[in-house]
Amino acid sequence: MNAIDDAKYMAYAISLAKKGQYSTTPNPQVGCVIVKNNKIVGEGYHKKAGEPHAEIHALRSAGENAQGADVYVTLEPCSHTGRTGPCTQALIEAGVQRVVIACTDPNPLVSGRGVNMLKDANVNVTLGVLEQKAKKVNVAFFNRMQKKRPYLIAKLACSLDGKTALANGKSQWITSEAAREDVQVERARACAILTGANTVISDDPRLTVRSDSLEPATQSAFNYRGKQALRVIIDGKNRLSSQFQLFKDGNQNLVFNLKENQSLVSLPGTRQHQIKSVGEHVDLHEALQYLAIEEHINLVWVEAGASLCGALLSEGLIDELIVYQAPLILGDKGRDLLVLPELTDLKKAISAPFSSITRVGNDVKYRIKLDSTNKTDRS
Amino acid sequence: MNAIDDAKYMAYAISLAKKGQYSTTPNPQVGCVIVKNNKIVGEGYHKKAGEPHAEIHALRSAGENAQGADVYVTLEPCSHTGRTGPCTQALIEAGVQRVVIACTDPNPLVSGRGVNMLKDANVNVTLGVLEQKAKKVNVAFFNRMQKKRPYLIAKLACSLDGKTALANGKSQWITSEAAREDVQVERARACAILTGANTVISDDPRLTVRSDSLEPATQSAFNYRGKQALRVIIDGKNRLSSQFQLFKDGNQNLVFNLKENQSLVSLPGTRQHQIKSVGEHVDLHEALQYLAIEEHINLVWVEAGASLCGALLSEGLIDELIVYQAPLILGDKGRDLLVLPELTDLKKAISAPFSSITRVGNDVKYRIKLDSTNKTDRS
Repeated sequence: MNAIDDAKYMAYAISLAKKGQYSTTPNPQVGCVIVKNNKIVGEGYHKKAGEPHAEIHALRSAGENAQGADVYVTLEPCSHTGRTGPCTQALIEAGVQRVVIACTDPNPLVSGRGVNMLKDANVNVTLGVLEQKAKKVNVAFFNRMQKKRPYLIAKLACSLDGKTALANGKSQWITSEAAREDVQVERARACAILTGANTVISDDPRLTVRSDSLEPATQSAFNYRGKQALRVIIDGKNRLSSQFQLFKDGNQNLVFNLKENQSLVSLPGTRQHQIKSVGEHVDLHEALQYLAIEEHINLVWVEAGASLCGALLSEGLIDELIVYQAPLILGDKGRDLLVLPELTDLKKAISAPFSSITRVGNDVKYRIKLDSTNKTDRS
Repeated sequence: MNAIDDAKYMAYAISLAKKGQYSTTPNPQVGCVIVKNNKIVGEGYHKKAGEPHAEIHALRSAGENAQGADVYVTLEPCSHTGRTGPCTQALIEAGVQRVVIACTDPNPLVSGRGVNMLKDANVNVTLGVLEQKAKKVNVAFFNRMQKKRPYLIAKLACSLDGKTALANGKSQWITSEAAREDVQVERARACAILTGANTVISDDPRLTVRSDSLEPATQSAFNYRGKQALRVIIDGKNRLSSQFQLFKDGNQNLVFNLKENQSLVSLPGTRQHQIKSVGEHVDLHEALQYLAIEEHINLVWVEAGASLCGALLSEGLIDELIVYQAPLILGDKGRDLLVLPELTDLKKAISAPFSSITRVGNDVKYRIKLDSTNKTDRS
């Protein structure tokens, strides 16, 4: 098999991996393709935690054809016996002759172990084929494993002049129906949805995916997951009570309170966790670390107000911004998109190139990756 | 000649007309193509006021081939003897057999006269071929003729969150070098550039086209015009003095003062005109009417601050917005894009679809036509 074929089969394996994007949480998305005599004889992807890994699905579909075959897998096969047996062992037992791996396991405790087990069993291993593409699919999972915090995507919606509402608070609707439907798709990918008590109190949102608003393929992929994203609410002042929709629909919530606040009101369907304070606020770093380590949250979709989004941004905790902007002008009296500390030097402004600019209905949707090192030219 | 051929030749005539976009002011842009036996035998466009019209250029290039030919012209040929002879007469004398006209003259005093003169001389006339496209080329000229005010394009530049500067006023540079170069091209099309005394005092801008920053073809087209756009400054409080760059570079200025202010400081290279007040401000409607009627200004490029731009917008005087937006976040302490009266109903917000969304360097450039009747869906 030459390098071009390797890339071709790995690209296909990556496309399989993405099929799991709505349902693998907290696991990574993995795809696997088994090739013999330059023909695909087996394929699979990981669908859901607790169910077989991609390699097992692919081996089952290949049957005896796996013997002597080449296997393309987007992430290093596991070497541990978890809820499913170790995939490395299954590949060895199936008699495959070569395993092509896009990237090694990001967990430093096990990274490389699967590769070594394969080599020890005289299976040829090729590492790093389409590595960057494969990592991108699991950017949130890698983030959790390597930085011990989830990957945060903050959703912002505003007018052309950066306003989110009128001075009187009216904001229904700034963006178009199409943009609001697009938000449903973005939400469907998230492991958790983060907001603040302020937003809960003023908007009483549900923060669920209304799966009937999704396209059929996405809907069925999301429904396979079988549960909504965990809703995470930061409530530094203990202002929440059971009257809000979040606490009535039977879906899970996690509320972060301050350590100092001893008397917590019990909220239905809700776990509560106390976090140390920074000034008067919940320590956002600690809260996110908790989400990563204790809750195994890879991807957090942030739908919060100008203050919480601003605080997360200031702390460098937002990895990506998705901004829906409507061709609408509200003027200076409207409410601002982001509350941030006063800047005195333009060079210190938060800035990163647009990753994409697309039209969504009447609005425009920007995607900005803030971890980018390519700073905007404002020299 | 069939309708498809007619459209083809008229499209070419329109493309010729556009070559005059940087230099015909205050005249319209007109292109002309002369066709005989389905071959182009002559062509021309209007380059500059005082020089021959498009038809004359085309007739000269066709020579004797004009006899019995079909003539495509993007605007009704003139019937009056102005600085050049009437084109209608020249076409009749050349013996053309048919004249195809995209749109009639927007000036109600002469509209249709050229057509009638041709018909009276037994020249066939076809009207309305690619009429909308041809009108679009001269949207500003049509605006002046029909509404007695110029067509206003306001340039706005802001961060993603709608801010134009830091709280301390720093704004160099929000947008990228590429966006600032693009502004030069937009300015080069304008008959006048409008700003307020505030902007002059705080930024001391030149508001000229630096033609060496234009691409060669645009540069040579702009240079043919031989002068910069008229700079128009609204100074309701007589705050200007001769210290600013605008009054030192030898290019023309027009300053609007209030009628009530009797003692005007004389400013070099500057005409001054007094306008009645509305509240404490210059009546913008009267000022623009003056620009149209007395100064023959078709296209005004507005580069002003949040207050003047906001006032023009509120008065419904902006026809088009061009917004350069940088992937930069300045936060709520930054300066707002537009000062507008407080809104209490979202449905009354200024809103129109994006006409175009393009990337310019690191920034995005929106074009929004505000006279559009297609309102944004926010139901």
